[in-house]
Amino acid sequence: MKIDIFCAGGTIDKIYFDAKSDYQVGEPKVGRILEAYKLNIEFEVHSVLRKDSLEMTQEDRNTLKDAISTCPNNLILVTHGTDTMPETAETLKAITGKTIVLFGAMEPAMYKTSDAEFNAGCAVGAVQSLPEGVYISMSGRIFEAGKVKKNVAEGVFEIKES
Amino acid sequence: MKIDIFCAGGTIDKIYFDAKSDYQVGEPKVGRILEAYKLNIEFEVHSVLRKDSLEMTQEDRNTLKDAISTCPNNLILVTHGTDTMPETAETLKAITGKTIVLFGAMEPAMYKTSDAEFNAGCAVGAVQSLPEGVYISMSGRIFEAGKVKKNVAEGVFEIKES
Amino acid sequence: MKIDIFCAGGTIDKIYFDAKSDYQVGEPKVGRILEAYKLNIEFEVHSVLRKDSLEMTQEDRNTLKDAISTCPNNLILVTHGTDTMPETAETLKAITGKTIVLFGAMEPAMYKTSDAEFNAGCAVGAVQSLPEGVYISMSGRIFEAGKVKKNVAEGVFEIKES
Amino acid sequence: MKIDIFCAGGTIDKIYFDAKSDYQVGEPKVGRILEAYKLNIEFEVHSVLRKDSLEMTQEDRNTLKDAISTCPNNLILVTHGTDTMPETAETLKAITGKTIVLFGAMEPAMYKTSDAEFNAGCAVGAVQSLPEGVYISMSGRIFEAGKVKKNVAEGVFEIKES
Repeated sequence: MKIDIFCAGGTIDKIYFDAKSDYQVGEPKVGRILEAYKLNIEFEVHSVLRKDSLEMTQEDRNTLKDAISTCPNNLILVTHGTDTMPETAETLKAITGKTIVLFGAMEPAMYKTSDAEFNAGCAVGAVQSLPEGVYISMSGRIFEAGKVKKNVAEGVFEIKES
Repeated sequence: MKIDIFCAGGTIDKIYFDAKSDYQVGEPKVGRILEAYKLNIEFEVHSVLRKDSLEMTQEDRNTLKDAISTCPNNLILVTHGTDTMPETAETLKAITGKTIVLFGAMEPAMYKTSDAEFNAGCAVGAVQSLPEGVYISMSGRIFEAGKVKKNVAEGVFEIKES
Repeated sequence: MKIDIFCAGGTIDKIYFDAKSDYQVGEPKVGRILEAYKLNIEFEVHSVLRKDSLEMTQEDRNTLKDAISTCPNNLILVTHGTDTMPETAETLKAITGKTIVLFGAMEPAMYKTSDAEFNAGCAVGAVQSLPEGVYISMSGRIFEAGKVKKNVAEGVFEIKES
Repeated sequence: MKIDIFCAGGTIDKIYFDAKSDYQVGEPKVGRILEAYKLNIEFEVHSVLRKDSLEMTQEDRNTLKDAISTCPNNLILVTHGTDTMPETAETLKAITGKTIVLFGAMEPAMYKTSDAEFNAGCAVGAVQSLPEGVYISMSGRIFEAGKVKKNVAEGVFEIKES
C-alpha cells in the first residue's frame, strides 16, 4: 500500500529560527513523523507550498488540486494549515476517483505537546478505510468536505450546520 | 461521536517499577493519550485485563468478547498485546453489528519513541471510517481479522497469506 | 537548599499562538521544568521581564539587577535570552555575596529538541558548586561573566579572548 | 574541556525488549543525551559494566575504580544504578586528583518522563565547578561521597546524618 502526501505548509510545519528570533513555515514534517516507526506502508512526500493557510489564494488551491490530480495513486493525504483547510477541501472536491484526507496540527510538529503525530495517525487510518471523496481529519474526527468548520475560539474542528 | 475502548494490557501499558527494578503491565494508557489533545470525540475506557498477551487464555478472550458484546455502542477500540492480537481478533468476530478495531504498541506508551500515540490515531481514524467488522490497526495498516499476522523478526504486522 | 530564579524572557520562554500564527515570549517555563521531577531543592520563580533579549535595554538590566540584589538568598539562577546574555552578566557583576548563574536555551522549552531542560540541569548543578560570582551556563560549559560570547554562526557559547 | 564518562549500568540504561517482553540493562545512554545538543565540551564514553546496581559486587566497584584511576583526565562522570550509588562513591574516594561526579536516573532514559537528561545536565555543570573529590548528583542536589543516601520510599537522594 502506498500513500502520496501533498504538503501545503501550515502550523504543523512551523519552525523557530534562533538567528532571526522568528517563526516560519519550514520543510514538511510529515515524512519524519512516519519514518519514526516501522510501518508497513510506502509513502511519498510532495512539498507543494509552504504557506500559512491564512495567506493561501485560490491560485494556490488550484496548484494543489492540479498536483494531486496528476498523481496516479488514489490514496492521498494533504497537510495544510488549519485556518482555511475547509476551503481547500471544497476546491479538492473537483477531483474524482481518489480518497483524499486533509489534516494539519494546532501546534507545530516540533512541539512536545503537538497533535501532529496523533493527527497523522488518524489520517493514515482513515485514508485507507474510507470510500472515494474528500475528507478532513482533525480533532480525532473524520469530516466530509463541505460539512466542517474550524471553531477558532474552542480550537477544535466541528460539523458545520448547513 | 462516542468510542468505547476496552483494554486488555500488553506492551502499550507496560511500566517500570524502580522499587522492584521490574516491568509490569500497568493501568491503561490510552485515556491519557486521548486526553492530551482537544478532541471532538467522547470516549470511555474499560480496563478488562492487564496481561502480557502471551499469557492470555481463551477464557480471557471470552471475557473480553462478553464485555464488548454487552456495550450498547457500536464504535469499539481494543488495546491489546501484540503477540496474540490476531487470535483475539478471531474470537471477537463472533460479535456482530459493531466496528471493532484492535491496536497496541511495539514499545510501551511511556517510551519517548513509542508508536502508541500514532497507533491510537490510526485506530481512532479507522474505527469511524470502516464498515462493521473486526480489524487490526498496526504498522500504519488496517487489516481484517483473520488475514493478519505479526512478523516477530521484522517487528511489523503484515497480511497473512491463507 | 533554596534557589531563587529570576526570569527575563528569551527564546526559552517563547510560545506559539495559533490564533495569531505568531510567536511571543510567554510565562517562565523553568518552574515547569523543575517541577517535572522529584527534586530535593526548593525554588522560587520571579518573573521580572518577558523580552526577547535583543530588545533589552540597560534600564531592563538594572531592573533585573535590583530585583536580584534585594533577594536575601545567595543562590541565584537567571533565565535570559541568549543574544545579550553576556551583557546582562556584566551588569550583574555589581552584585556581591551571591553565586549567580545565567542560562537560557537555543530552542524554546516547548520544543521536543529543546536544550532547556539539560541547560536547567547544568545551571542547577553549577550554582550550588561554584564560589560567589556571576557565571553563564550554556552549551554544557560554565563561563565566567566577562569571558564569554555567543558564536551566532555556530550556535554555541564560547570563551571570549580578551 | 574534555569529560570522561564511565558507565556502570543501572536504571538509566534500562531498555525494553519486545521479543522477550523483558527489561534489561542496555548500552549506555549518556552519549546520546549529550550528542542531542550542540555542546562546547568533548566527552568520551567508557562502558565498564551493565548491571542493575543491586547486583554490583565489591569486585565490580574495584573494576570501576581501576578504570577511572588509569584515565589521564581529571574531569570524570560516572553513570550508575541508584540503589548502591552511595557505596560505589565511597569506593571511588580512594582516587585522588580528580573531580568525580556520579549520577543516574530514577526512570530509564528512554522514558518520556525520565530525569536522565536533567540529571546529566546537573552532573556536567557540577563536575567542572567542584574541587577535587567524589560527589553524587541526584535529585537536583550535589552531595559529597559518604554524606548521602537514597530514600527509597520517597524516591529522592538526601543527606545522610552521620
